[in-house]
Amino acid sequence: MAELLVTGGVVVTLDARRRIIRDGAVAIRDGRIVAVGKATALAPQFPTAERIEAADHIVLPGFIDTHQHATQMLAKGLADDCTFWQWCYERIFPYDAALSEEDVYWGALLHGLELVRSGITCFADPGGPHPEAVARAVAEVGHRAVLSLHTWDRSPADRPLPEAVRSPSPAAALAATRRFMDAWDGQAGGRIRVSAAVRTLTNASPELLRAMLALARERDTIVQLHAAVSDSHNQWVQAETGRTPIRYLASLDALSDRWLLAHCARIDDEEVQLLARAGAKVAHCPGSSLHSAYGAVAQGKIPELLAAGVTVALGCDAVASNNRIDMFQEMFLLAGGQKDARRDGVIFPAEQALEMATRAGASALLAADQLGSLEVGKRADLVLVDARAPALTPLYDFALVPGLVYCASKHDVATVIIDGRVVLRDRRFPHLDEARILAEVRARAQALIERLALPVASRWPWE
Amino acid sequence: MAELLVTGGVVVTLDARRRIIRDGAVAIRDGRIVAVGKATALAPQFPTAERIEAADHIVLPGFIDTHQHATQMLAKGLADDCTFWQWCYERIFPYDAALSEEDVYWGALLHGLELVRSGITCFADPGGPHPEAVARAVAEVGHRAVLSLHTWDRSPADRPLPEAVRSPSPAAALAATRRFMDAWDGQAGGRIRVSAAVRTLTNASPELLRAMLALARERDTIVQLHAAVSDSHNQWVQAETGRTPIRYLASLDALSDRWLLAHCARIDDEEVQLLARAGAKVAHCPGSSLHSAYGAVAQGKIPELLAAGVTVALGCDAVASNNRIDMFQEMFLLAGGQKDARRDGVIFPAEQALEMATRAGASALLAADQLGSLEVGKRADLVLVDARAPALTPLYDFALVPGLVYCASKHDVATVIIDGRVVLRDRRFPHLDEARILAEVRARAQALIERLALPVASRWPWE
Repeated sequence: MAELLVTGGVVVTLDARRRIIRDGAVAIRDGRIVAVGKATALAPQFPTAERIEAADHIVLPGFIDTHQHATQMLAKGLADDCTFWQWCYERIFPYDAALSEEDVYWGALLHGLELVRSGITCFADPGGPHPEAVARAVAEVGHRAVLSLHTWDRSPADRPLPEAVRSPSPAAALAATRRFMDAWDGQAGGRIRVSAAVRTLTNASPELLRAMLALARERDTIVQLHAAVSDSHNQWVQAETGRTPIRYLASLDALSDRWLLAHCARIDDEEVQLLARAGAKVAHCPGSSLHSAYGAVAQGKIPELLAAGVTVALGCDAVASNNRIDMFQEMFLLAGGQKDARRDGVIFPAEQALEMATRAGASALLAADQLGSLEVGKRADLVLVDARAPALTPLYDFALVPGLVYCASKHDVATVIIDGRVVLRDRRFPHLDEARILAEVRARAQALIERLALPVASRWPWE
Repeated sequence: MAELLVTGGVVVTLDARRRIIRDGAVAIRDGRIVAVGKATALAPQFPTAERIEAADHIVLPGFIDTHQHATQMLAKGLADDCTFWQWCYERIFPYDAALSEEDVYWGALLHGLELVRSGITCFADPGGPHPEAVARAVAEVGHRAVLSLHTWDRSPADRPLPEAVRSPSPAAALAATRRFMDAWDGQAGGRIRVSAAVRTLTNASPELLRAMLALARERDTIVQLHAAVSDSHNQWVQAETGRTPIRYLASLDALSDRWLLAHCARIDDEEVQLLARAGAKVAHCPGSSLHSAYGAVAQGKIPELLAAGVTVALGCDAVASNNRIDMFQEMFLLAGGQKDARRDGVIFPAEQALEMATRAGASALLAADQLGSLEVGKRADLVLVDARAPALTPLYDFALVPGLVYCASKHDVATVIIDGRVVLRDRRFPHLDEARILAEVRARAQALIERLALPVASRWPWE
C-alpha cells in the first residue's frame, strides 16, 4: 500500500508561509507528499489511503541533524569531563581503532533508533571506521543519511594519529571515497546519500582539502568538516598554518558553498563575513558545545551568522560529545542559550529554532527541494508529536511552536514516517527488535571496554 | 506495611564517602532509612519487608528542587520570548490575579506529577496565590515541599502591582504568613514545611525584609527570595535603593544564613564574598536562565560561589520560566553550561552536579540531617533510574554518574519512593488519576486564557 493519509492533527507546514493547519492532513503517495490541507478537504480525495490518525498530535516535518557520528555509539561515557586532547587522543582515537565492523553495525542500529525516537529523520555524518556498516544499519532502520568516509592524510609528529584511522595519501583517500560513493550513494531507495568529508584541518593536507572540494562539485554534494571547534583546535590550526581555520580555508581559495562546517564555535566577525560570502553552511551543535566546552553557546556567533545570511542548521553531534540525542533539547539550547548569553529575552524566537532544525537543515545538505517542510512534491518525512503529553499540558494555540521548543522532548514523539513508511508507531518500532539491539550493544560495549583498557576510573568508590 | 526493602540495584549513596554499592539495598521502616548495604547482607535482616526489585536500576536519593512555583503550572506558554517586564507585568501578574483556588489546586496536582516523574521528591516554593491549594495538592500527591506565602508590600507608582497579589502592610504579610505556618507547617506527616518568603526586593520594604528574617529565625526556617535575577531587575533595585541586590541586603544588616536566594544570576566577585560570609544559600536555575535570558549560565558566578564555600543548589523554576521540569536537564545545563562558558572541559565534573541536585539542596533547605543522601536515619526519599533505558545504553561502570548527568532524562525514572511510600511505580502513579488531572488542567487553562484575553498571538498564521 503506497498511499497514506495522516489526518486530524495540527499540521505545522514550515512552508513558505509557515502555515499551521488545524484539523489538517497530509497525503502521501509512493514516499512523496501529494497534498497538504484540511482533513475534510483531503479525505474524499484519498478514499483508499491507509489512515494514520493524528488527532491530538502536532504534525511536523522530520528533524534534520546535520552533525552526527553513528560510529561513536559505543563511546557514550568514554569521554566525559576531559580536555579536548584527552577526548581525541586518549579516548576516541583508541576507541575508533578498536571497533570491529559488527560493533559499528550494532551501534549504528541503536543510533538509528535513538535518532528516529527523537523525530530526526535524516542525519549527516562526517564518517568514522567501517562506514559501510553504518550504511547497512541505516538501510535497515529506515531513516535517511548523508554518510561519508572520514579522511585525514597528515599525522603531526608530536600528535601521531593511530595508523588504523589514517589515509595513506590524498589520492588513496579520494579513491576510497569514490568507491564508497559508488557502492552506497542513492541506495536504500535514495535514503542514503554519500558526501565528501575531511575529518579536521589539522590532519589534512591542502591537496586533500582541494581534492574533496573538487569531488563534491563533481558529484553535486557537500564536504563535511569539523572547523573552528574549540580554542585548542584553533590554536593547533594556527600553529600549523599561521591562520585561524576559516581564514586558512579562504587562503587556499577553498571556501565555498559546498562546505558543511561542524561547530564554528570559535570564529570572529571577519570570519562570519568570509563564510557568508562563500555561502558555506554551519552545523551548530549546542549540546555538544556544553558537554565538550567549545564555547559555541556562550561566546559563539550564531546571531551574527544568521544576520549575515549564513545557513546555520543544528546538530546533536555524537553521544561521545553531547551525550544526548534529542533535537528538542538542541532547539531549547539554541534559542535559550543565545538568550542567556546575550541577556536578551527576544533575541531568538522559538520559531527560528524550529526552522533551523528543519528547513535550514535541508538547505545545509543541499536538499531544500526534497526535505525540510511539509509541501507537495517533497519526500514524506513526518513526525507526530503527542500534544496531550504532560510536558505539553496546557498548550495554548499561540504557544504551539514555543511549546515544541521550550517544553517538549523526544519522549513526546509518538509516530515517525520516513519516505512514506511508518518507522515508529505509537513509540514502538514495528519493523525492528529493539530489545535485541540494546542487548547486543550492551554485550559489545562490555567486550570493547575490556579490550581497550582505558586509563579511566570512577571518581566515586564502588563496593 | 511500614517496612520496604529496595534491593538489587546500584545504590549511589551520596553519603560522606560517596559510595556506590553494586547489588545494593536500602531498607526502610516507617518512612526512614534503617539500613544501606549489600543486598545479600540486608535480605536476612528484613525478611518480612515488602520487596522493591531494583535490579538493572540505579538507586539515588530524591532530587531537591530549590526553586519552583507550583501556582504557575497553567502559565506554561504564557510568557515565552518576551522581555523581563513583559514577563512580569503583561503576563504573569495578570495570570496570578486571575487564578481561582481550584485552578491552583489542579495545576499543583499536575506540578506534583511532573516533579515526581523527574525524580524530584522535595521542592521549595516562594509562593503565589492560594498557597493552601498547593498544600492540599502536595498532601495528595505525596511529595515533599517547603511552601510559603509570597509577600510584597510596595508597589512603585510607575509599575503598580495588581491589588490582588499585594500585601497591604508588613504587619499584614507577617500575620498572614504566621497563619499559613500554623495551618500547614508539619502537615502531611511532616512532608509539608512552611518557610518565610519575600517575592522581590523591588516590591518589599526594609521592614518586611527584616520581619521575615526575624520570623525565619523564630521558626528555624529559611526566607525564600528572588535576588539578582537579571539586568533589568538589578537596575530596578539600584534605582530604588542605590545598591545592587546583595549589597542592599547587606546594607540592611539583613544578609544571613537564613536566605535561600533564587537565581543570583547577576552578581560580582565582591557579592560572592558577601554571600559566603553570611552563609546565604543560592538556588541556581540554569534552564530558567536560558529561557528567560538571565545570563546565569554564560556569565554567572557559579564556580566562584562554590570556591567561596557558598551552598549552591539547583532549581528548575516555574514552567512559565524554563519551561521544563527535568532535574537531569538542569544537571546537564549546570555542568555543561559552565564548561561552555569557561571553555574548560574539566571545570565541572558530573559528580558535582549530582551533589548539587541532592545534598546541596538539602543543605539549602536547612534539612541536611533529614534529606539529600541515602544514609541511616534520613527520610526514605529514593529514585530508581532505569539503567537499561536506551539513553543509558551502553553504561560503563566508571561513567555511571556522568551517565546520569549527561545522558539520562526524567523519562528514565521508573520508580519514586517518598517518605517510605511508593509514589511512582514503573512510570505510573498508583494512587492518582493522571488522565483526570491532565483533562482538568486542560479545561481550566482554556477557560483561564479566555478570561485573561492577553495580547499574545501566534507568530505563524493558523488556518
